[in-house]
Amino acid sequence: MKLLVLNCGSSSIKYQLLEMPAEKVLAVGVVERIGEAMGKIKMEIDGNKEAFDLPIENHEIGVSKVIDLLLDPKRSLISSPDEIKAIGHRIVHGGEFFSESVELTPDAIEKIAACNDFAPLHNPANLKGIKAAQAALPKAVNCGTFDTAFHQTMEPVAYMYGLPYKYYEQYKIRRYGFHGSSHRYVSQEAAKMMNKPLDNCKTIVCHIGNGSSVTAVVNGKSVDTSMGFTPLEGVVMGTRAGNVDMGAAFQMMRLENLSIDEIDNIVNKQSGLKGIAGVSDMRDLQSMAAQGDKKAQLAKEMLTLSIKKYVGAYLAEIGGADCIAFAGGIGEHDGDVRKGILAGLECFGIELDETANNKQGESWVISTPNSKIKVMVIQTNEEIVIARDTYNIVTK
Amino acid sequence: MKLLVLNCGSSSIKYQLLEMPAEKVLAVGVVERIGEAMGKIKMEIDGNKEAFDLPIENHEIGVSKVIDLLLDPKRSLISSPDEIKAIGHRIVHGGEFFSESVELTPDAIEKIAACNDFAPLHNPANLKGIKAAQAALPKAVNCGTFDTAFHQTMEPVAYMYGLPYKYYEQYKIRRYGFHGSSHRYVSQEAAKMMNKPLDNCKTIVCHIGNGSSVTAVVNGKSVDTSMGFTPLEGVVMGTRAGNVDMGAAFQMMRLENLSIDEIDNIVNKQSGLKGIAGVSDMRDLQSMAAQGDKKAQLAKEMLTLSIKKYVGAYLAEIGGADCIAFAGGIGEHDGDVRKGILAGLECFGIELDETANNKQGESWVISTPNSKIKVMVIQTNEEIVIARDTYNIVTK
Repeated sequence: MKLLVLNCGSSSIKYQLLEMPAEKVLAVGVVERIGEAMGKIKMEIDGNKEAFDLPIENHEIGVSKVIDLLLDPKRSLISSPDEIKAIGHRIVHGGEFFSESVELTPDAIEKIAACNDFAPLHNPANLKGIKAAQAALPKAVNCGTFDTAFHQTMEPVAYMYGLPYKYYEQYKIRRYGFHGSSHRYVSQEAAKMMNKPLDNCKTIVCHIGNGSSVTAVVNGKSVDTSMGFTPLEGVVMGTRAGNVDMGAAFQMMRLENLSIDEIDNIVNKQSGLKGIAGVSDMRDLQSMAAQGDKKAQLAKEMLTLSIKKYVGAYLAEIGGADCIAFAGGIGEHDGDVRKGILAGLECFGIELDETANNKQGESWVISTPNSKIKVMVIQTNEEIVIARDTYNIVTK
Repeated sequence: MKLLVLNCGSSSIKYQLLEMPAEKVLAVGVVERIGEAMGKIKMEIDGNKEAFDLPIENHEIGVSKVIDLLLDPKRSLISSPDEIKAIGHRIVHGGEFFSESVELTPDAIEKIAACNDFAPLHNPANLKGIKAAQAALPKAVNCGTFDTAFHQTMEPVAYMYGLPYKYYEQYKIRRYGFHGSSHRYVSQEAAKMMNKPLDNCKTIVCHIGNGSSVTAVVNGKSVDTSMGFTPLEGVVMGTRAGNVDMGAAFQMMRLENLSIDEIDNIVNKQSGLKGIAGVSDMRDLQSMAAQGDKKAQLAKEMLTLSIKKYVGAYLAEIGGADCIAFAGGIGEHDGDVRKGILAGLECFGIELDETANNKQGESWVISTPNSKIKVMVIQTNEEIVIARDTYNIVTK
């Protein structure tokens, strides 16, 4: 069965065509600059890359152009749109409505729209993607996989803030957490690598990329996670501040007469590594730090310390762990950051194998055989989570 | 030598008269409702309590009335104001100016005033107290002990936020930390109780009261602390929210059209235990929880979890600890809260002695002899820190 996975942003569509249940990626690519004078579609098939410049007025046209490319006989992928039986959509915010992937019925779509306020940049774009897919492939089943769903197993003690209770009752202001598909995938893979049943496994997953979050997973369920009501909370990120005293934000607003949208923009887009050192990309930061740039060194230390503190906090919360797993662009590729996070954790029985840590690969163990807590790097794959969930919904 | 210790709020003055270096408290009390139609002065000498109702227009009159009471021959405390050689003031915010207690020269007083913006409720009141003491005891030396001073040993990696760097450079927005005198005193006492030299000691101090903070102390120096730019950050407190996604605060402001002062008031005065369960006092909360009140139970769990997570975070940050010390009104008296915080920390080698934990006392060990990390309760004494520092400055 052929499935399409779509991850729609406000001006872009990431897509994958997969053969399921074989999990074979037939085509992968991205539609960029939707709504601009000139857009672009990139497509990769078996390592062969193509790119097409063309105006793409909206998401609907974007999806239909992708289908046209997939239909082109010279690519021998599909001979009719009807071959695509289902579309799996990545949806950012499912609020308290969705604790698992679902078929996107009119009721489900209405609930996603009801979460627009929680993720004003993402959910409306996701909804555009759903409409575009319905128009381009009217016979296919649309399913949604939510970034927040995996974290819906958190207990109130973990998801409630110490705010007046009415803000939860009236407005559902609480911790939701994000990167759920990645945390779920990585915690499942970690259990496999340890040869342990998932329901007898404590794992701390550090998803570290441009956005980063740490999750405590017990027996396959998210118990606590560092991102909160929005993806702003938690560790220091590329451009997001992470944890900051709210009193500091209020003082910044007073001192510079900032509007809510202005301070929101500063702490989400101008902060984190970029705010401290001027660059948000970890590779740039690492080379600046290596050249002696003090602010780059500070930013790197702040990032590692903020993650280290979450690892310690979650070890305390769940009473130790079997495994710590690193994923995400930085988590998978930056051994120096991993080493910084783990430094000093020997007291918890964590022993890093430096040679293994300096390797590159897909998924491998970086702790010594004696390490009481196993540490591993796991290449995350959110698309496969979406494809699997979609396949399961369609075939059940 | 007789010293006066003053802790001035906006409408109150807490005072102690001490004989130093014997550290004998000769008189202790409080001036209340300054500026109201009718005020009150309470005084306790050797367990004998007195109270006087009289109008107290301002701090100056409050201090001079206290001196008058101390001078009264029937109390046989002092026969002349000149016997009070020095006054030690508790000052809330010393910014980056003060890393230790100092004599309050005109320059020092100017610097305290320069920190008014950081602690708008506290520093101006502290300054009033200094003026009042100068007027009432013109020959005495005034010294200041700062809540923030002990934490000035933090490194940038611990005190910087992931905000644009200019907010530190231009406005000194950073983590300062509070309760410094308590964390300093408790960490020193903990070293004594362990018979370890202070400069070879790792201690995590949990000061838990109506306001609460957790500090990692290494070799007598504060390395990291949970309160931040203001006392709002960190664990769930009586009326303060503790850590909350800034994005949630912004959303609350949008939804209810709140001003900065309004949201500031909500998260500082209407949140924490009070926000969740309606009461800010831990004893009230405990009896509600015991009677089955779900929100009181949730609030209690949130408080203990938030402290547990800091203990874990700091164990990771400083690479294990010799000792965890509890202090403050709740930390010293509520064994149930201590037990909740320590539950699940057996994996770090912490073993609670439940019988010892259920005792009441001044300072005692509550971990078993086998516990790798010692746990103790230590009655804090911020006034003695101020008196010692003041004495040392005056006699050096």
